[in-house]
Amino acid sequence: MTAYGKLSREELLKLKAELEAKYQEVKAQNLHLDMSRGKPSAEQLDLSMEMMDVLHSGVDLKDSEGVDCRNYGVLDGVKEAKQLLGEMSEVSPDKIIIYGNSSLNVMYDTVARAMTHGIMGHTPWCKLDKVKFLCPVPGYDRHFAITEYFGIEMVNVPMTSEGPDMDMVERLVSTDSAIKGIWCVPKYSNPQGITYSDETVRRFAKLKPAAEDFRIFWDNAYCVHHLYDDTQDFLLEILDECEKAGNPDLVYKFCSTSKISFPGSGVACIATSPNNLKDIKKQLTIQTIGHDKVNQLRHVRFFKNIDGIHEHMRKHAAIMRPKFEAILDTFDRELAALEIGSWIRPRGGYFISFDAMEGCAKEIVKKCKEAGVVMTGAGATYPYGKDPKDSNIRIAPSFPTTEELAVATDLFVLCVKLASVEKLLEEK
Amino acid sequence: MTAYGKLSREELLKLKAELEAKYQEVKAQNLHLDMSRGKPSAEQLDLSMEMMDVLHSGVDLKDSEGVDCRNYGVLDGVKEAKQLLGEMSEVSPDKIIIYGNSSLNVMYDTVARAMTHGIMGHTPWCKLDKVKFLCPVPGYDRHFAITEYFGIEMVNVPMTSEGPDMDMVERLVSTDSAIKGIWCVPKYSNPQGITYSDETVRRFAKLKPAAEDFRIFWDNAYCVHHLYDDTQDFLLEILDECEKAGNPDLVYKFCSTSKISFPGSGVACIATSPNNLKDIKKQLTIQTIGHDKVNQLRHVRFFKNIDGIHEHMRKHAAIMRPKFEAILDTFDRELAALEIGSWIRPRGGYFISFDAMEGCAKEIVKKCKEAGVVMTGAGATYPYGKDPKDSNIRIAPSFPTTEELAVATDLFVLCVKLASVEKLLEEK
Repeated sequence: MTAYGKLSREELLKLKAELEAKYQEVKAQNLHLDMSRGKPSAEQLDLSMEMMDVLHSGVDLKDSEGVDCRNYGVLDGVKEAKQLLGEMSEVSPDKIIIYGNSSLNVMYDTVARAMTHGIMGHTPWCKLDKVKFLCPVPGYDRHFAITEYFGIEMVNVPMTSEGPDMDMVERLVSTDSAIKGIWCVPKYSNPQGITYSDETVRRFAKLKPAAEDFRIFWDNAYCVHHLYDDTQDFLLEILDECEKAGNPDLVYKFCSTSKISFPGSGVACIATSPNNLKDIKKQLTIQTIGHDKVNQLRHVRFFKNIDGIHEHMRKHAAIMRPKFEAILDTFDRELAALEIGSWIRPRGGYFISFDAMEGCAKEIVKKCKEAGVVMTGAGATYPYGKDPKDSNIRIAPSFPTTEELAVATDLFVLCVKLASVEKLLEEK
Repeated sequence: MTAYGKLSREELLKLKAELEAKYQEVKAQNLHLDMSRGKPSAEQLDLSMEMMDVLHSGVDLKDSEGVDCRNYGVLDGVKEAKQLLGEMSEVSPDKIIIYGNSSLNVMYDTVARAMTHGIMGHTPWCKLDKVKFLCPVPGYDRHFAITEYFGIEMVNVPMTSEGPDMDMVERLVSTDSAIKGIWCVPKYSNPQGITYSDETVRRFAKLKPAAEDFRIFWDNAYCVHHLYDDTQDFLLEILDECEKAGNPDLVYKFCSTSKISFPGSGVACIATSPNNLKDIKKQLTIQTIGHDKVNQLRHVRFFKNIDGIHEHMRKHAAIMRPKFEAILDTFDRELAALEIGSWIRPRGGYFISFDAMEGCAKEIVKKCKEAGVVMTGAGATYPYGKDPKDSNIRIAPSFPTTEELAVATDLFVLCVKLASVEKLLEEK
């Protein structure tokens, strides 16, 4: 296979005709496949069905402290849920508040609270002329949607193989007091699957922000979502590092069981410093009488402890791993030599990030869609949906079956080739 | 029995000594009872235990439209949950958004959204110099806590036996554009158990607010919470009345299963006009990936339909009714002739509202507490915790057992008598 860039105009035209013909063939199959979102497959959800059995009418619904979980009360979570999600978050239970069914909602709340009430006594963000967030890119579209919704200006920070460009983060955060936060998915990042290096985490912990109410929004969504047993990424625990660095209040850490048990019916939490917890609870006591304790109990009785979660995640990995490998192997085989795209082989998480030739991402996603395969919209991995290079595409391998995935991947590869040839022809 | 007001100073002093002696006796018993919050009793919670059985690992968790409720998706609730809570809210399912575990949280969200984003294109409340809410009094402390938290000025509106003083509501709402909302518990109100009359509802529906973004916060918390089968209050459906009055967007109606199934583990909803729904969904799509659909399914499969809910509520009533009657009968027997307090005999809801002689409520609650019975704090039923007459006390009969309740009521009556005598002596 020759790199496309080295082909002559004639060769490209011939290739285009061949690819076009293949594309029309696939199109005729009327596919209806979805690789757009990080949804677990039905097979993965089946892994948690026995969670539906642990609570029944013959079971006592009191927690370990004797609290009747069926009734009102307990603002910040039942003791054993704090224990379990504390273990998952790698912090002590007294640094945890258990929330409802989704960590996205917790992050939204955290930003909304800062807007209307400020953080730890500082001016509410809605009273400021300008509030900015740093956004490592490519990143998670729903993070960006929250900050955009609140009119917060988003500043792109490029990702490196070790996490966000920390030179840039340090420079911006230390000089611009309008910068109030940064969105991070520090482990098996969305979409690249990159885990922040120890140095990156330590540099985060040592930040000297110009704004005293600057916070790191540390969305540890994939903390236990390894694909392999033997080669796992390791992430330094940031609260601990912040404390050591004399910056105890710098981080809000988010976590949930969404992609462990049932998305939408899981348990979410925030882990942060005592000062931040106190600040948050002032709101929480107004906002709710408490979250769903029965569901907290259900999760604890099913998983028991962190070992139970790890054991469970191995079963998820057994389903996810072949899907990731099928896609990555196809990319290696079909695309590596052509020099029309690059990708990272992640060790965990939910996504594969594909970088097409500049100016090709939108066209690839469009072609896939026209042939019946929905990808995450091109641009979605950037604030305001604007990928300046129109290059990044997020691939979500989890939801389709292995068979569907093979078909979808072949189509994707075909569309990458076709769009790249078209692009090269434009430039000739 | 003679009315206390007619007793001489000497008679009062003698009475005080007798009451004091009795009070010391009760105090020596070291009671630990709680009539402070509207918490269902364990016996009531037991009624819903079979809800824990309807979903198990052998059951399909797809909704009637084939949606896998275990996974992401469905922003506004599964079809049959909208149907069920629609029936409960007396509106069609397409006017419903299903939320998480608590309607308080929905109300908080609704105010928070108006603060940061405004209502249907109007200026966000956080950008206004002054925002006010009307608060029918006595009312629900947690409503007042939300508006206070957001710095919204609260204006008392007295309750009558037909609902809030509508002359006052109409006058204020039509002339003051800073008034953006009113808190209502229209059926079996908290704490008085009053149901708004048809005329009151119609006058609400016909309001002509000075502020276009004025909304009625219609917390129909006790919509199916009757105490009697034969004598039930009836509340006109407000959305319907608003539509007829040409005011379709005037109301947010809130509802939940909190005191039907398990408080904290129920399902909440908002019912409102298509315009308002559209406005709300703009936020919802940013705020969450969706609420707990498995729990929605659990509720629907357990209750089936509105008849199932009514049937279930009859069981609640059978437990609640004797408790209400025990307290009210004691009041009738022990207090009626003394003219030192008044109360309403409610036909549903969760509370009995007691009005002591002016200036006595705090002292009564204090005396109860010192003898081991916790009541809702005096003043809690008024904004800012300030009851201008220091008169109203909310009594929550649900949580204690019948035996505990008898003891607590006797103590309460004793404290009412003692505080009243002390007050009368002050004035002699």
